[in-house]
Amino acid sequence: MDAATLGNMNGAESLVQTLIDCGVDTCFANPGTSEMHFVAALDRVGGAGLDGKPRMHCVLGLFEGVVTGMADGYARMAEKPAATLLHCGPGLANALANVHNAKRANTPMVNIVGDHATYHREHDAPLTADVEGIARPFSHWVRGGTSSRTIAQDGAAAVQAARTAPGQIATLVLPANTAWESSDGPAVPLPVPARTPPAPAQIDQAARMLRAAGAKAVLLLGGPAVATLAGQQAALRIASATGCKLLAQGSNARFARGRGRLALERVPYFVDLAVETLKPYRAAVLAGTKAPVGFFAYPNKPGTLLPPDCDVHVLARIEQDVVAGLEALAEALGAAKSVPIPDPGPRPEAPRDAAVGPEAVARAVAALMPENAIITDESVSFGRGFFPNTHAAPPHDWLQITGGAIGCGLPLAAGAAIGAPGRKVIGLQADGSAMYTLQALWTMAREKSDCCITILSNRKYQILLGELAGVGANPGRTALDMMDLGNPDIGWPKLAEGMGVEATQATTMAEYCDALGSAMQRRGPMLIELVI
Amino acid sequence: MDAATLGNMNGAESLVQTLIDCGVDTCFANPGTSEMHFVAALDRVGGAGLDGKPRMHCVLGLFEGVVTGMADGYARMAEKPAATLLHCGPGLANALANVHNAKRANTPMVNIVGDHATYHREHDAPLTADVEGIARPFSHWVRGGTSSRTIAQDGAAAVQAARTAPGQIATLVLPANTAWESSDGPAVPLPVPARTPPAPAQIDQAARMLRAAGAKAVLLLGGPAVATLAGQQAALRIASATGCKLLAQGSNARFARGRGRLALERVPYFVDLAVETLKPYRAAVLAGTKAPVGFFAYPNKPGTLLPPDCDVHVLARIEQDVVAGLEALAEALGAAKSVPIPDPGPRPEAPRDAAVGPEAVARAVAALMPENAIITDESVSFGRGFFPNTHAAPPHDWLQITGGAIGCGLPLAAGAAIGAPGRKVIGLQADGSAMYTLQALWTMAREKSDCCITILSNRKYQILLGELAGVGANPGRTALDMMDLGNPDIGWPKLAEGMGVEATQATTMAEYCDALGSAMQRRGPMLIELVI
Repeated sequence: MDAATLGNMNGAESLVQTLIDCGVDTCFANPGTSEMHFVAALDRVGGAGLDGKPRMHCVLGLFEGVVTGMADGYARMAEKPAATLLHCGPGLANALANVHNAKRANTPMVNIVGDHATYHREHDAPLTADVEGIARPFSHWVRGGTSSRTIAQDGAAAVQAARTAPGQIATLVLPANTAWESSDGPAVPLPVPARTPPAPAQIDQAARMLRAAGAKAVLLLGGPAVATLAGQQAALRIASATGCKLLAQGSNARFARGRGRLALERVPYFVDLAVETLKPYRAAVLAGTKAPVGFFAYPNKPGTLLPPDCDVHVLARIEQDVVAGLEALAEALGAAKSVPIPDPGPRPEAPRDAAVGPEAVARAVAALMPENAIITDESVSFGRGFFPNTHAAPPHDWLQITGGAIGCGLPLAAGAAIGAPGRKVIGLQADGSAMYTLQALWTMAREKSDCCITILSNRKYQILLGELAGVGANPGRTALDMMDLGNPDIGWPKLAEGMGVEATQATTMAEYCDALGSAMQRRGPMLIELVI
Repeated sequence: MDAATLGNMNGAESLVQTLIDCGVDTCFANPGTSEMHFVAALDRVGGAGLDGKPRMHCVLGLFEGVVTGMADGYARMAEKPAATLLHCGPGLANALANVHNAKRANTPMVNIVGDHATYHREHDAPLTADVEGIARPFSHWVRGGTSSRTIAQDGAAAVQAARTAPGQIATLVLPANTAWESSDGPAVPLPVPARTPPAPAQIDQAARMLRAAGAKAVLLLGGPAVATLAGQQAALRIASATGCKLLAQGSNARFARGRGRLALERVPYFVDLAVETLKPYRAAVLAGTKAPVGFFAYPNKPGTLLPPDCDVHVLARIEQDVVAGLEALAEALGAAKSVPIPDPGPRPEAPRDAAVGPEAVARAVAALMPENAIITDESVSFGRGFFPNTHAAPPHDWLQITGGAIGCGLPLAAGAAIGAPGRKVIGLQADGSAMYTLQALWTMAREKSDCCITILSNRKYQILLGELAGVGANPGRTALDMMDLGNPDIGWPKLAEGMGVEATQATTMAEYCDALGSAMQRRGPMLIELVI
């Protein structure tokens, strides 16, 4: 594009060009009237480049929670932010639950939220709302655009904020007139600060603690420490040198797993079990994670999970260079340069004759998944034991719901497929959670995403039945009805087919293994309802 | 319940009992772990009374936007607030788009948002968020509960706020420990301030203006002025006395329509058309509405719709006693005591042989609806002309989307059916909007709601195509893809059946009239996809 063209851009065009120049080349969108100039700019500026591919790949979601959940899954795999395009305050509100999950995943994300023209706000038209106020509780960075002359600079600052370690939520409000009025052309990309390595004092203290505590120490891992093979290898060197226990945090944005990776387990979800698991340790060193806490508080149970007398030390905060910290610690401990990753044992066989249950499902997935699959896991209560039975699967990446806001899994799968083309995505998905954002299936059909979704269909909010029992009451009809997804049963194959996704139902492990095996042999979206 | 029992209540039980004592007897819910004590209290306190009916009717929604949309529809018909039960910050966020619509409809609503125990927040567990901050942009009243000893008083204050004219959004945060710790029993309901009548000066000035301007005056109506027959009758007396034009605001929470009610038209949506419609008037008197403004700003178009030299006067603000104001004005003008409502002409016949189009759909609904039906209208672009062809239908109430946050219609229908048992609900529903909250269909099936939903299936965001054309561009592939709900086509009958709702597809008016006519003869939910 020549200088004359750049100078003639409107604000929206200058913003789209800036996003592209900053390396943001994918936009998940659910636009409305106030975003029409931005959409037109996606055509004019983000259209096909010299290679025939669009400079900005646009993906439509039919609900905003799908849009941001896809942006999360995309960024977890592509390791760079996508843009989202949202419509006014209520459209942003619809997007926020999955922004919350993305924030907890340290996912970089650039939300562009169209709004009324600056001079129209005084009229309090029906869609008027405090967009910046709505964004703030869920964003690290919020800016309200004020002029078409500066909106490109705002966009560059948004990408810089999103890319700042460990990955941040940046939300830019785009008033309609800042999109349609004249700009001075795109802005120059801003530098992204590098991750800083942990200070020597952080390394030295960690080394002292681990040497002193030996097997009574636990090295707790999160972020790049579990997402990368380099992080896992460094952790293994440390454990081999000191005898410390390695444990991952409970919810992980991305976890490198399977053969050739560490058979790491996680801090359990249940408070009693977590306390029991962590009881032996007198020292805890944190690498890319925080000291574990209960997901919820319960009467007469602790909120923090490490023993009260456990000495806790931060080796590397999540925004620091966690892998460099682990490697420096391994060196400080004089650990062996290379410790082979233990063999996880034989790959499971497909348990065709087993009863339907968590272990059988995990073994079926481990048996049938291809190399380099991506697992998106919103299996909630059913999936707590999936890890032990998938250590011996082929190498894969495992993406979890990180913020507890259910409705993450289906969009995560759709976004991961776009962020990592050529890799099979396998969604392990609780039914209740799937209902929050089932519109993601339509985008999978449109994008021909290579996603195989298993709906774990127990037809209840199983997790809540457990929690309600913990309240100590004999639940009555009213309470039980609030947990019950039956009456009527949800027909998942029909819901999927209604959105253009081929689907089937399985009620036995043999049926499930057949359906899953066949899905692994083809490309494109597929849904299997497994009645559990 | 005796005094001893009341004194032994925990916070949740004291809150549920207080809500019931304040007249809130319906709770739309999508609970999570932190709400389990509230759910248990719904059983213990809200369970069956002496008449065998539950004291608190609980209705489960499978997505929070469905929950608040149902509470909106319920309250518009029942004329009192429902409670909603939501889970933590992200659950509240999912609920907010339809809270926005309810706020714009002046709907009373009491949102109970469970949250972490007060002492657990410091741990920043995965679901931790600033719940009060999230609620504030969409609520008139927000309070964070602090103690089980005061949560009942907080609940009474929330209901008082919700019931304060013209109807408000009250959001109470319920930390888990304020639910499970001990209370001092329920709180006493607080008085609800009565609507104040307009001041004599407001009446006198309106009378002077209308007398002076005659046919060059317009009386703009909203709220109770269109929702009640009394309001419409008073407006008709005024118009008969002065020759002023009567016009309703564009978006109305509830509109009394059909034979025996005024054949009122609304301020048009399109700016040019609205300006043209309002051009003749030199004086505008407002009763329960504000001076009309453009839904959006457009380059080189005005934001306000009345002529610049039009004299604008407020007869009655929406929170005042609008009907009393109209009646006082009629008296001040010496209007005839009773002016017969004009006959709207013959009831349309079902247009079996017409082409599928807006006029034919409106005539079919007018021809086939029973007496006292409730229309929920989220027909968006297709439905702009539905009013003229339904004036001669039997008496009915028409509920519109008020805040422009699409995804309102299906929950509104489900909630209206619960708020007005025994009346047929007819949903006129755009397909794109329906996708935002399609989970409402499941609640209709469970509650056996008497709702007949017509999906107006054009398989595109038609409104945006119009808006994009207004931008002046020749839209390219990228832009058109962002407006297109085809590829793949959404199969609405399958989606409905997947959620337990009987469904059919119609492609001609004959098929549509058959399906609609048959749905009118039976009770329970039904969906008709009309391909338009």
